[in-house]
Amino acid sequence: MRRIRLFVAYDGTDYCGWQIQPNGITIEEVLNTKLQKLTKEEIRVIGASRTDSGVHALGNVAVFDTDSPIPPDRMAYALNQKLPADIVIVKSDEVPQDWHPRYQDQVRKIYEYHIYNAAVPNPLKRRYSTFVSFPLDVEEMRRGASYLIGEHDFASFCNVRTNVEDTVRTVEEITITKEGQDITIRVAGGGFLYNMVRIIAGTLIRVGRGFYAPEKVKEILEAKERTEAGVTAPPEGLVLMKIEYH
Amino acid sequence: MRRIRLFVAYDGTDYCGWQIQPNGITIEEVLNTKLQKLTKEEIRVIGASRTDSGVHALGNVAVFDTDSPIPPDRMAYALNQKLPADIVIVKSDEVPQDWHPRYQDQVRKIYEYHIYNAAVPNPLKRRYSTFVSFPLDVEEMRRGASYLIGEHDFASFCNVRTNVEDTVRTVEEITITKEGQDITIRVAGGGFLYNMVRIIAGTLIRVGRGFYAPEKVKEILEAKERTEAGVTAPPEGLVLMKIEYH
Repeated sequence: MRRIRLFVAYDGTDYCGWQIQPNGITIEEVLNTKLQKLTKEEIRVIGASRTDSGVHALGNVAVFDTDSPIPPDRMAYALNQKLPADIVIVKSDEVPQDWHPRYQDQVRKIYEYHIYNAAVPNPLKRRYSTFVSFPLDVEEMRRGASYLIGEHDFASFCNVRTNVEDTVRTVEEITITKEGQDITIRVAGGGFLYNMVRIIAGTLIRVGRGFYAPEKVKEILEAKERTEAGVTAPPEGLVLMKIEYH
Repeated sequence: MRRIRLFVAYDGTDYCGWQIQPNGITIEEVLNTKLQKLTKEEIRVIGASRTDSGVHALGNVAVFDTDSPIPPDRMAYALNQKLPADIVIVKSDEVPQDWHPRYQDQVRKIYEYHIYNAAVPNPLKRRYSTFVSFPLDVEEMRRGASYLIGEHDFASFCNVRTNVEDTVRTVEEITITKEGQDITIRVAGGGFLYNMVRIIAGTLIRVGRGFYAPEKVKEILEAKERTEAGVTAPPEGLVLMKIEYH
């Protein structure tokens, strides 16, 4: 028995997120089914990040245990032959039996939130970015974002659905870039609360359109109250880019 | 009665091309149906470019005649309310009654062909680019492309299905750019033969992987024989970017 790690990329548009659930197809479920076909074993993958419905990933991580004779580094290729085109295993390798993708010290996750900022939507961008028709002031968004960097209690940026006691997290980096009509908010940190990146994006969009002053982000943070922040930005703009284990 | 011009963008993935046909839904058909709902008139749009099944556009052009009181420049907005998310009217205006989108002097069309060149496919690129796993040498592709610039008989780059007598066309410009793993072939010219841009792309991909020497492109051109050129590259990589009328 060995533990195989998968680096998983997917277009989340047509999935009800990562985690298995009764009312729709999920990434986890497709991986389990296809791995069972491949190995003839009962497989249960363990994912690093349970991305929401409609959210994409280029570098989610999952592990599973198997007796399959397929060499660990060939598992990616073998599994890709069975997967639909919207899920791709980028790489596979072997990890120690006790290696768990969620319980590792020194993890760094990188997300990108993509905005298409133009007068009219672009049908070739609609699946992978959020359309904002109001002109966004990127410089103001950067000023607003600067208040979020560092260790803070992000209770205002956590969806009320969750019941985590500790809402202190560290945002290591937020960079906002603009290329033509594409604005990308890149966020890196050790861990994020439920919907945190999307609430950050929703809040910075409000700053960008002049609805909030940049300083308002500091007030929202200090309020520690979800209702203070902007709306949760839609899922299609979010991509889990990478999980780095050190 | 006045003639309205539409600048049309669409994700061609789920359509059987522009032109109405019995076996599947097309862009032309959707526009006619939605315009009829909007104006309560029997509408028949005339398109500038009959893009193939799966091909995208950011700037196709169409006209139609109407007695609708909707101001010409507001037609885009009104129609977008009725269209599915994968078809967007970027702009609308009024043109003279006899203005025809296909019969204009001094037209310039710009196409882009997108290639994702990496070891493993990217599920977020698969709808709008062609995946090529062999490393492509962009410098060699540029050398190959240089033979196509200017006025030539492009019979070798025309799908045999068509019966045009005159296969002489002018390619004004081909530029090939690479950003990360994305390669873009941008082609501009007065007019193109059926499948010409996709056959150019398919041929240049062969050059890029070292299957053809760049000089082979010159030989293919001189052979005036379709079977000499590379395969027609798949539709998902192609975008009709713009039609310029001078």
